[in-house]
Amino acid sequence: MLETEYSLSAIGFLHSPLKELKEAPMQGREGAPDAWLEVNASIAEGLKGIEVGDELIVITWLHKAQRNILKVHPRGDESVPLAGVFATRSPDRPNPLGLHRVKVLAIAGARLKVGPIEAIDGTPVVDIKPVLHQLADA
Amino acid sequence: MLETEYSLSAIGFLHSPLKELKEAPMQGREGAPDAWLEVNASIAEGLKGIEVGDELIVITWLHKAQRNILKVHPRGDESVPLAGVFATRSPDRPNPLGLHRVKVLAIAGARLKVGPIEAIDGTPVVDIKPVLHQLADA
Repeated sequence: MLETEYSLSAIGFLHSPLKELKEAPMQGREGAPDAWLEVNASIAEGLKGIEVGDELIVITWLHKAQRNILKVHPRGDESVPLAGVFATRSPDRPNPLGLHRVKVLAIAGARLKVGPIEAIDGTPVVDIKPVLHQLADA
Repeated sequence: MLETEYSLSAIGFLHSPLKELKEAPMQGREGAPDAWLEVNASIAEGLKGIEVGDELIVITWLHKAQRNILKVHPRGDESVPLAGVFATRSPDRPNPLGLHRVKVLAIAGARLKVGPIEAIDGTPVVDIKPVLHQLADA
């Protein structure tokens, strides 16, 4: 039988001055603050090679999102027709993964200061990847 | 207590001519083929608004990856020093999520032809997001 459920583990959590969803901008580049990403000690060696100034894609688990929503008004604007969630960046979607392109601003042991990032305080982080500039990929 | 495990569901699967990992290029833009992404009928309305020519980020679950690896030789090149998996795009990492930037080439009901994509046949898809050009984000 085809396996269709997978288990994700938090590799760390964000510590952000954004405490409530209603304070959070929709995208990092819309005025979001910087945050500390604290990685679990057990997997900290996976950070080796990350340096201040690097650009990363942080993948979060948007734990406040609703998973049973398939259509939304883009950017919450009810004057815009409903679109499928996969045609939008809405946090509400079957698997509420967030993609955040950030810069590394400081490193202190297993803690990375990154930004700008619109995810709120306490958001779980599930993966970190380098931006691949040479492929114009992300 | 802090919740640290989350359940991901496949929203669909890839149908690709790449049948084995050893045939697969490391990145889509390194000669990967196109593939059909077949979305489960139950969530197909989430695709509304996606059009041929759109650029998407497809997020996969790299089901053949090893999850207990924290350091790798980048691109499998043993002459390059070991780096933390979070400083690389290695599929081997605690949560083996794949990010693939693709173009939509055709749409047939709940099936999207996308490419280029280096993931192998049968790879589960867990999310689809639009590329946000105006933010140079991904």
